Parts: sequence; structure tokens; C-alpha cells
Amino acid sequence: MTGLLAGLRIVEGSAFIAAPMGGMTLAQLGADVIRFDDLAGGLDSDRWPVTKDGASLYWAGLNKGKRSIAVDLRHPKGREILSALITAPGENAGIFSTNMPARGWLSYEELSKKRADLIALVIVGDRHGAANVDYTVNSITGFPLVTGPLGHEGPVNAVLPAWDIATAYAAAMSILAAERHRRLTGAGQKIVLPLQDMALSAVSAMGYLGEAAINRVDRPRFGNEIFGTFGRDFRTKDGRYVMICVFSDRHLAALAKAGGFAEAFAAIEKDKGVDLTLEADRWTARAELAAVIAPWVAAHSAAEVGAALKKEGALWAPYQTFRELGADKDAVLDNPMFTVLDQPGIGAYPVAASPVQFAAVPREPPRPAPTLGQHTDEILSGILGLPGHEIARLHDEKIVAGSST
Amino acid sequence: MTGLLAGLRIVEGSAFIAAPMGGMTLAQLGADVIRFDDLAGGLDSDRWPVTKDGASLYWAGLNKGKRSIAVDLRHPKGREILSALITAPGENAGIFSTNMPARGWLSYEELSKKRADLIALVIVGDRHGAANVDYTVNSITGFPLVTGPLGHEGPVNAVLPAWDIATAYAAAMSILAAERHRRLTGAGQKIVLPLQDMALSAVSAMGYLGEAAINRVDRPRFGNEIFGTFGRDFRTKDGRYVMICVFSDRHLAALAKAGGFAEAFAAIEKDKGVDLTLEADRWTARAELAAVIAPWVAAHSAAEVGAALKKEGALWAPYQTFRELGADKDAVLDNPMFTVLDQPGIGAYPVAASPVQFAAVPREPPRPAPTLGQHTDEILSGILGLPGHEIARLHDEKIVAGSST
Repeated sequence: MTGLLAGLRIVEGSAFIAAPMGGMTLAQLGADVIRFDDLAGGLDSDRWPVTKDGASLYWAGLNKGKRSIAVDLRHPKGREILSALITAPGENAGIFSTNMPARGWLSYEELSKKRADLIALVIVGDRHGAANVDYTVNSITGFPLVTGPLGHEGPVNAVLPAWDIATAYAAAMSILAAERHRRLTGAGQKIVLPLQDMALSAVSAMGYLGEAAINRVDRPRFGNEIFGTFGRDFRTKDGRYVMICVFSDRHLAALAKAGGFAEAFAAIEKDKGVDLTLEADRWTARAELAAVIAPWVAAHSAAEVGAALKKEGALWAPYQTFRELGADKDAVLDNPMFTVLDQPGIGAYPVAASPVQFAAVPREPPRPAPTLGQHTDEILSGILGLPGHEIARLHDEKIVAGSST
Repeated sequence: MTGLLAGLRIVEGSAFIAAPMGGMTLAQLGADVIRFDDLAGGLDSDRWPVTKDGASLYWAGLNKGKRSIAVDLRHPKGREILSALITAPGENAGIFSTNMPARGWLSYEELSKKRADLIALVIVGDRHGAANVDYTVNSITGFPLVTGPLGHEGPVNAVLPAWDIATAYAAAMSILAAERHRRLTGAGQKIVLPLQDMALSAVSAMGYLGEAAINRVDRPRFGNEIFGTFGRDFRTKDGRYVMICVFSDRHLAALAKAGGFAEAFAAIEKDKGVDLTLEADRWTARAELAAVIAPWVAAHSAAEVGAALKKEGALWAPYQTFRELGADKDAVLDNPMFTVLDQPGIGAYPVAASPVQFAAVPREPPRPAPTLGQHTDEILSGILGLPGHEIARLHDEKIVAGSST
């Protein structure tokens, strides 16, 4: 392991997206992340999407580069092993990350008796500890009622689990912040990260709560338009869609040049008394702008529209499906972030490494997700120092599983 | 400043969401984050939503708790001041975070001549350095074509800028990872974080690219249903909407009890030959499940439905608007993360602190965003050691602005 965080060890008890992705994020930077699961695998071990043989592509994606230990979580000896693993000595160890119910033997209070400077990050649904998932958190934020086509009645759910993803990175950040604090002061601590508060703090940061409280308005649904500037989708002659945005004068000039809109834009400015270099004025004149752009896009193929916009440096993108993305030369096939990786039980396909490029160390290529318990024996031996015959006995008694079974 | 990151200083050159939110995230943990802007303010200084007086609620939300210095970015002396600020000495200083074009005097190459162990995080649109915003990145991921109502043609854009938010937290994480590396090795570095790669790595992690490559299918649009388990919206008698999900046996049992569905669920299991405790089987039987639940929700008010689901511990949430969220007792008004803060130029409204609770230090209440150049003088004096008459001259020559103008 040669990554930026080489040597740092995190023991993870997790399922679903936020916690496993947080651990994976640190594993991709070189940390030794050990995920433990019950003998039958985690709640998420079979989550869809799956291959035709039932192997979870989801699980494989979110647990890349970790080590796996499989232990009977209900057996006192199994719990003893995991407690010892979480609290094992070492300046770079003693970090526990979980979104499992962290009660009893898995609580910070119990674990920190074994290691006073333990860092324990607990991801919870809300600050009371109630259950929540991305979808229930998103419902209360306000976003589903302003997302979706104009005229649509009712909420539009996000398919993209934005709050889980943000929480994953916040978890990784919080572990590093606490590890810094421990390095400087010697003190460990418990960290609580509520999924709901992650969402609410972002809603607050982006001004939505301020708008509601100060302006006393509920922002309506604006379809595919970007609020407060100009941006929306357009349909091409060949039935494809492109997103075109204007966030600066430069984007405006590039768009005008690509489509030959200079005169039409000047006419809008004159007729409506607006200055299209200003965001607010672009928003005011968005219908007029769209009326100029739409016929041009509709008269050309996606290839023609894309070529013209790209040539002038406009801010735009094609919409594509997941399969089209998978075949996208620039975004995936030629992107050094991706490596075609052979994931045992699934096959070879392009898999992403960390999106962050640190100049001090070369980016680690992605490593496969482990099979359940793949590293049980090496962890029991290498970290807990158990002799071979004891490890064999733990297998015999079905307290651990994996590697040698 | 008593926060977890007290003493750490980050100089930020930023606009829009990802970079300012990354800085704000660290400021809320106690770091000294200094945002610099041109004399006229940043590109995002007037971004919508704004108050009726034109003050940006967006800017106020994303720059809370920072210090602000206003400098003429085109003047050689202004550039000299900022270079000196970015590379000022100190174990906890020398960190630069930006999503501005980091060329010339603002490049890592130039700045690191002044401080060899500089850490410079540069957020770029894609790995080539091209422009991108959340909306153009999202277009190519595949999500807009699987989001939105069944039967809808064309893309559905996200209103929630998920990639910007994730990038903000990834930026904060990356700065802490590099600062750890510098503390251990003495070496600084340049970090490049492409917004597009942030999105693509998440698409990869969640199995979408694997599904496309291995199963060779494009997942269709499933409306508001959660793929691979059970979850969707339902309409109440009084025309409101609730999200109801089942991610575990416990959620299934709670839902069955809340609505009296035990027999109906057993009948589905028998008729369809499924086991509703399994995610995949819930997905297979989702239409039958919805057919049982929908009439019950439609026959009761939102208050009745919510009370029954809450009582049994089901996994559910009401959909609400931003104004309803702002008046939500549990989520906002009684939530200790929020403080009613008087934001100069805007007024008093509930503002969120950091969502992360670190036990070692009390959570800092949110601090207002600065006015443009509010801390110009104290920064010039306190960090760069400029005497009063020099600061006065810089104001006279219109090279800096703020505090004393």
C-alpha cells in the first residue's frame, strides 16, 4: 500500500451506501479499511443491481479495496474478536466507522473502555437515532416538490442518492478531522453524523431555508430550468437531448457564436430592456432565449449541435444513458481514473479509482471488493496475533468464516 | 475559535457551490477560512435566491463563518498581497483552495516558489480543465434519463446539485488528507479534484456502470419507485404525499401493523410465490404491494397516515415544501443544529451549523457570512503584518477594499 493514507486503519461495520462508501473513499486513498460482516453477509450483500448469477454489482462497487472479515456477530467470542480488532493498538489504528445500531458491545462507551483514545464515527438516520434512508430524508427537504416536468402533480423522487453520497465524503472527512485532533491532543472521541442533518445543513447552505423564511415564498417547480440564470434541455433533430447553460458572459458569447444568435440576443436585450450578461436578466428572459435556441437545436443532429457548441467553448453537455456513459471514450474509456478490473464472481468491467488526484503519491488503481471473509485469517493472525490452531478452532466452531473454509 | 480544526488556515478563491461549500464546511469545524474576492465581489455575489433588496441568500449560506478580504485581482500589488497571504508561514497555514482558473500568479507552480510545502486544492470541471457545472456533469451520468414520472419523455434535471455538494465534502476531506501527509512528511502538494470525475466515480461505485457493462441493459425509468426493494410515494385523502419504504423485515412488519396489511401481504406471498422479507421479492411484487397500500393511504388524512406509521416504527416520511420544512418543529425549529442568526443585510432566520457532532469539542453555532472585505484590514495587519499607513495607502490606491472604506 503506497497511498496517501497508507497505514491508517479503519474497522467498519456497515451496510447500504453512506457508510460503505465512506470507508471505500478512504481505502482508495490507501487506508487499510476492514469491513466486518456476519457469517451470512451484510444486509446489503445481495442488493440490486445484480448479475444474472445474483452477484451484487452494488456491493462490489461500494466495498472496493477493503479487507473482509466474517464473524458470528451473535456469538460472545465473535464479539470479543471484533472488539479487540476495533480497539487494537497502534497510532494509526483505533478508528471505528459504522451505520449499524451501535449499542451494547458495539457502543463507543463499551469499546472505549478497551481503548481510551478510540475514534468512533456513527452514522445515524436522524439526531434521535431513528431510521432514515436517502429517500425519506429527501422527502422532507422540499426538493421532490420542485423537481420534475412543469405541470406534473406530486413529488418526483431522486434516483441519485445525493445525501448518501455527501454523507460518505463527510464521514471520511470527519474521521480525518478526528484523527488530526487525536494526533495533536492524544484524545479520541465519538462522532455522530445524522443523515437527516447532512441534508438539512445543505438545504440551509444553498439559501432555500432563507428564501422560505425571509421572502416567504415557496419556490415553484421550474421543470428543467436552472433557477436564477439560463440553462435547460433542448431536443435535437434526431430525438436526442442536450443541456445548454449560461453562467458567464463567456458562455453567452460562445453560445451566440455557435448558433449564430448574436442578433437575436441583441434584439431580446432591446425588446425586454435586459442585459444578458447578468444572471438575473437571463432568468427574466429565459423564455425568449429558449425560443431562439430551440429551433436551431431542433434543426440539427446531436452530433452537429455538439460540434458547434464544443468548437466555441459553450457550456453544454449531451444527455446519455448509463450504457452510453459506459461506452463514452472521454469520460470512461480514455479516463485514467478507470481501470478494467476483474471482479471475482462478476467479471471484467471499467471501475473507478478515487476521483481525487494527489500529486504527492500516484493514484492507486482500483482494487476489487473482497469476497465475504476473504481476509479473516490474515486479520486474525496479523492484527490479533492468533496462532493457526486457534484460528482453525474458530472456523470449526463456526465463529468465523472465510479464507480457509 | 474553539472548534476541532482551530488554528488551521485555508485561503480560498472561489465561486458558486462546490468550492465555497468546501471552505464553509471546514470553517464550521473551526478552521480560519479566508475567502478573497475582487473589489466588485465574486461571480456568485448576487446569485439567486436574493431578498427583495437584492441580497444573495445563496452567498450568505455558502460563506458562513469565513473571513473576507477584497483585493483588486488585476493589480500587481493586489496579486502580490494575495500570494503572500496564501503562502504565509505557519504549520497550520499554507493551504489554498480554489475553483478559479489557477493559472499564472495563482498557479501552484508560482505559489509553491514562495512556500515549498504549499497545499493547493484545485477544483476543475473535468480532468482536462474544461468548464462544467453540476447540470452538465449530471447530464452525462445517466440519471436524468431514469428520473421522473413513468411515461415522461426526455430528461429530468436534478434541482438539488448533488455533485457540487459531494465535491464540497470531498474537497474538505482532501485538504485534511494532504495536511496529514504534510504533518507526517513535511511535503506539500497540488491536489486536483474534477467535478466530472466525482460524479463518474459515484456512478461506478453504485454499480450503474457495472450493470451497463456486465448485464448490458439500460435500466429504464421506474418513476418514484426505489429500484431493487420496495419504496414509493402515496397520496393521502387530503391531497398530500408520503414516501413509504421497506428495507428490512422490521420495516415490513411495522408497515403491515400500521395499515393492517398482514393478511393481504401473506396473500401476495402465496399468490406470487414470493418471500416479502427478501428485497428482490419485494421488487417483484411491488405493484401488488402498492395496490394494498394505496387505498389505505387514500382513505386517511396525512396526519392519520403519519401517526399510524410512526407509532409502529415504519420507514416513511411526508413530502413537504421548503416553507413547510422551515416551519418543521423537529427538523428545524427544535433541532440544535439550527440557530436563528442575524445575517447583516438580510435579517434573522434559522441557519444550520455543521451536521457533524464531534464529542471532543462543542459544536460551534453558525456564524454569519462576512460582508465583502469585512476583514481586509485585520488580515493585512494580523497575518501580513502591514502597518496602518500602508493599509491606508492600499485603500487610497483602490488596491484593497472593505473594512475601513
